[in-house]
This record gives sequence, C-alpha cells and structure tokens, in this order.
Amino acid sequence: MPVPHIDLPEGVPGIRSALAFRPETAAPLLQLAEVLLRGDNTLSRGERELIAAYVSNLNECEFCQASHSMFAALQLEDGAALVEQVKRDPASAPISDKLRALLAVAAKVRADGRSVSDSDVAEARRHGATDTEIHDTVLIAAAFCMYNRYVDGLATWTPTDPRAYDEMGKRIVEHGYLRPPT
Amino acid sequence: MPVPHIDLPEGVPGIRSALAFRPETAAPLLQLAEVLLRGDNTLSRGERELIAAYVSNLNECEFCQASHSMFAALQLEDGAALVEQVKRDPASAPISDKLRALLAVAAKVRADGRSVSDSDVAEARRHGATDTEIHDTVLIAAAFCMYNRYVDGLATWTPTDPRAYDEMGKRIVEHGYLRPPT
Repeated sequence: MPVPHIDLPEGVPGIRSALAFRPETAAPLLQLAEVLLRGDNTLSRGERELIAAYVSNLNECEFCQASHSMFAALQLEDGAALVEQVKRDPASAPISDKLRALLAVAAKVRADGRSVSDSDVAEARRHGATDTEIHDTVLIAAAFCMYNRYVDGLATWTPTDPRAYDEMGKRIVEHGYLRPPT
Repeated sequence: MPVPHIDLPEGVPGIRSALAFRPETAAPLLQLAEVLLRGDNTLSRGERELIAAYVSNLNECEFCQASHSMFAALQLEDGAALVEQVKRDPASAPISDKLRALLAVAAKVRADGRSVSDSDVAEARRHGATDTEIHDTVLIAAAFCMYNRYVDGLATWTPTDPRAYDEMGKRIVEHGYLRPPT
C-alpha cells in the first residue's frame, strides 16, 4: 500500500484525510461540493454525481471515481448498472440527450478548458440545457480536476473494501458533504 | 474576440464574470483562493501567487497566468522580472531551493496527481519544506487546474490591456479575494 506523502491521519480514506489535516482549506472545499452537487438545481443530485464520477474516472482517480460512482448510483433510478454504462460509453448509455451532451462538455473541460467548442455547447442547448446547467457542468468537471489531483497528489489512502464506499454513500446521501463523519 | 459560451455579464474580465453569474458557487471559490493564497502561512503571499501563476502558465490559461503573475510580482521583492524567469525556467531562476522543489511538485500535480513521487516530496523536505507547505503546494496546483478550466471552459473574456491587470493587482493586494470589485 503506498504511503501518503505527508503525515495524514491514519485509516481515514481519500480526501477526508487531507481535509482533516487542514481544516482551513477543508471548509471551502466541502462547501463547494455541497453547493455544486447537492444545492438547488434543475440537474438532479444523481445526474451531478454522475458527471463527477465520469470525470474522476477519466482522470483515473480511484478514490473519487469509486465514491462518486456510489453517490450517483444511490441517487439514480437505474443505479450502479447505469453508472457503469456511462463510464464505459456515454454515447450508448440510456441517458437523456441533454445529459449526454453535458457529459461531452465535461470531458472537454477535463482535457483542457479551451477545447470546449461553440458546437459542443450548441448541442447541449439544442437538447434543452440552460446556461446554468452548462455553467454547472463546466464547474463540476473543473472542480473534479482539482479534487482528483488533491487526492492523488498527496497519495491519500484508497480503501479497497467496497463496504467503505457503501458507508460513505449512505452518509453523503442522507447528510451531505458538510456534516463531519462520526 | 471569442464570445463566452453562456450569457455572462459583459465587460467583466475572466473568472469575475463567471463568479458574478453564479454567486452560490462564487462564495466557496473565492474563500478557497483567500485561504490558500493570502491566509496565515509560512509561504509568503508572493510565493503562493508565484505557484499559482506558474501552474496557470503551464495550463496556458492566459487570464489566470496574467493576473496571478501580476499578483505575484506585486508581492515579491524582485517583481515581474523574477516571475518571468520562473515561468521560463524555474531550474535556473534565483529562488530558494525549497521553492524550486515545491514548484516541481506543483508541475507534477498539474500533469497528474499520481505523478508526484516520493523523491519529489523528499527533495522538497530536504530543503526545509514542511508537511503543510507540501500540502498547500499540492492544493494550490490542483485548485488552479480547476480555476484555469473554469475560466477557459466558459470562454470568459481575457482583457488584453495591461492596465486591467494592474487594477486587479492593486485591489487583490490591498483587499484580497473576498471584497467585491467596485
């Protein structure tokens, strides 16, 4: 098991260990996740977690992709099977054309913000995406390019026991990002 | 001049237009910048802005690299000339070995968090970097991978008149990130 690059609290998974190490930066990082992924929005919480899981999977951040896949699965009608389909091939997954177009924007943002084209955005708009939905998709994708690098750049601990993600999932779905784990 | 992808307030530069569009997400984004770049720290404000400018320059985000280069220059003894040297070649720039090692960590985080090696971190520590300095360097680099993508993914307006950056610089140095521009 790789050892974290700095002296993080032991047995605390992924980003939680980095947040515990530095409460001053934890506050805005958690507030951003709460607003983006759970605040009032015309995109459902499941859809927004799916964008987060999709981007984290492209970035190959195992802790973030596993946890946000769980959070998405728990909040989407078709659950884990749909999340896996989207990660494998969003083009053929049974999702709305709007969500498919937003995922394509998210993938562009992940690679390089400058690669988002007028036609990527026009495609999302043609399927009903609003300016706020486009904005939030861009920011979710950008934010996970931060969270993924934060988690992996410190070599935080990635649990391999699926039950760890079950427990995180139940807590996040019920209480959100701002309530500290007990 | 490219047109922003969504209906952002006109004449408002870069990230400021996206923050004005969505105040709910602006609050934690600005709070994060304030804590990371201006909060109590053994790295000076100039050094932290230099890391931000360096990463933004590697990401080729013109708005962020120009503005944070200005914020760094205004808060470093050797000013703009040093910032340009660091962006061109940190290996030969007249900075401390600790800062040079932290910039190397930041460049790794920018490319992929997983690429930060034990020896990158050991090198920083050998030159006196603390765990908190290593943590903050990783998070500054990760955060600018977000801010850069946010600014470019929405195709926000990048002013070309250097006076725009002068004015932003004076405001940030004096009042910080939390005070709204007048």
